[in-house]
Amino acid sequence: MNDAQKGWVVIAGLGPGDERMVIPEVQEVLAEATDVVGYIPYVARIAPRAGLTLHASDNRVEVDRATQALQMAAEGKRVVVVSSGDPGVFAMASAVFEALEDGSKAQPAWLDLDIRVLPGITAMLAAAAAIGAPLGHDFAAINLSDNLKPWELVERRLQLVGEAGLAMAFYNPRSKSRPHQFARALDVLRAACGAETLITFARDVTKPGQEILTVPLKDARPDMADMRTVVIVGNRDTRRVGPYVYTPRFAPGHQPGHQTGQTPTDKDT
Amino acid sequence: MNDAQKGWVVIAGLGPGDERMVIPEVQEVLAEATDVVGYIPYVARIAPRAGLTLHASDNRVEVDRATQALQMAAEGKRVVVVSSGDPGVFAMASAVFEALEDGSKAQPAWLDLDIRVLPGITAMLAAAAAIGAPLGHDFAAINLSDNLKPWELVERRLQLVGEAGLAMAFYNPRSKSRPHQFARALDVLRAACGAETLITFARDVTKPGQEILTVPLKDARPDMADMRTVVIVGNRDTRRVGPYVYTPRFAPGHQPGHQTGQTPTDKDT
Repeated sequence: MNDAQKGWVVIAGLGPGDERMVIPEVQEVLAEATDVVGYIPYVARIAPRAGLTLHASDNRVEVDRATQALQMAAEGKRVVVVSSGDPGVFAMASAVFEALEDGSKAQPAWLDLDIRVLPGITAMLAAAAAIGAPLGHDFAAINLSDNLKPWELVERRLQLVGEAGLAMAFYNPRSKSRPHQFARALDVLRAACGAETLITFARDVTKPGQEILTVPLKDARPDMADMRTVVIVGNRDTRRVGPYVYTPRFAPGHQPGHQTGQTPTDKDT
Repeated sequence: MNDAQKGWVVIAGLGPGDERMVIPEVQEVLAEATDVVGYIPYVARIAPRAGLTLHASDNRVEVDRATQALQMAAEGKRVVVVSSGDPGVFAMASAVFEALEDGSKAQPAWLDLDIRVLPGITAMLAAAAAIGAPLGHDFAAINLSDNLKPWELVERRLQLVGEAGLAMAFYNPRSKSRPHQFARALDVLRAACGAETLITFARDVTKPGQEILTVPLKDARPDMADMRTVVIVGNRDTRRVGPYVYTPRFAPGHQPGHQTGQTPTDKDT
C-alpha cells in the first residue's frame, strides 16, 4: 500500500473496431497499466502480457465494474477501463463518475484519485466517414435504449430535434427485448423529418463484414437495424453524390460562398 | 497520366492538436501521399519529406481547396486533405463532396475517383474527456457561425434542442465579426436549459496552454469564448463530482440500475 498514491484510472476509448483507429495515447496507457477492466468483447481486444491482469465482465454491470476500477486505483493499481468507441459517448466514462459520486460518500479519498478520460473514434463518426459526410452540418447523438429514459422522452426528442432540422445518429437502435420501439421511432422520424430524408444503417463499422445501407426514410424497415448497427438520419438537404452520402455545410437557401468558395466554414479549433 | 487510375483523395482528421491523438490509419495514408492540402495551421503539422508537396491555403477557400484536391487525384496524385478534429464534423469532408457534386457536372469521371474519409478525435469529444463526461447522455453538436445558416435558425435550434433536454457542444462560438451573437445565444440557453445548468469553456484543448472553465449558465459571459474555444452545455442533470463534470447516463427519475448496476447501458457497437 506504500505506492497507493501512484494508482490511477484511465477510461479509454478503443474506437469502433479497427486497430488502426486506436489513438497512440491509449496504447501508451495500456502499456503502463497493471489492470484492464471492461465488457468481455472489449477486454478481448487487449493483448495479454506479464504484469497485466484482465478483468472482463458482462454488459449489465457497468457501475460494479467502475467501482472495482476505483477500488483498485485506491489500492495503487494502474487501471484502464476500456470502452468501444469513445468512452464519453454512451459508454463507461459516465458510469465511472456515477460510481465515484456514490463511492466517495463512504470513501472521500476517492475524490483525490487520478482519473482521466482518453477519447476514441465513436461509432457514429466512423460510420459517417465510411459513407461520406452525413453529419457535416448540425447533428444530435441519441441513445434509443429505453433502459436509460422513458420511451415517451425518446419520441419527444426525435420530434423536437427533427423539427430543429438537425441530422441524428442513433446508438442502440434495436434489441430483442424491444422489437417494436424502433418501428415507432421510424414513424416519428418520417413525420418530423420528411419521408424522403436519407437514413443510413451502418453495421459492424470498420470490422470484417461491415455493411452500409442508405435508403429514404419511406423505405426504411425496422429489421435494417440491430444492436450492432449505428443509424444516421440526415437533414432534408442530405444527398447522394456518386456512391457517397453527405450533408452540405450550409442550411438550404443560405449558401453565400457555395460557388466562389469565399466562405469560412472550416472550424478554427 | 498513365497512372491516373491510381490517384485518390483521403480527407483525414488530425484530431484536436496532440499528436498522440492522431489515429495510425491517418499516419499510414500520409506516408503514401504525394500531396497534402489544407488550411495553413493544419498543413503546418505535417512533416515535410521528399516526394510530398504541401499545399497550404487560407480558411476562406474550402471549396477551391477541395476542387484542387479532386483535380490532382484525377491526374493520378495521392492527395490527403487534412482537417483538424474529425473531417466530418464542421470541416473539410462536406466541402469535398460539395466540390465533387459541382465539379462532376463538367467532369463526370470524378464520380469514379477513390475518395475516402478517415475520422479523427473531434474537439467536443476531446474537451468532454478533458473535463470528465459532460456528453454522457444524449447531446447535439451545433456550429454557431452564421456564415452557414441564418442566425434566427441558430436560435431556434438552441431553443428546441434545449427543450428536448439534450446537452450541446458548440463549435465556432464567437468571432470578431459577430461579437454580440454569442451573448444572445447564452440568453436563449439560460431560458431553454435553466440558469443553473453547467457550461464548460474549453480553449486550446490538448494543446499547450489548454484552459478549461465550468460555470453555471447564470454566470457565463460572452468573453469566456473565442474561436479557439469549444463550448459544452450540459443538461439539467449535469453535475460536478470532485474536479470533474459529468452527465449521468440516465434521465432524471429513471435510474433503475443506478444502485445495483444491473442495467445495460454500455453500447454494443
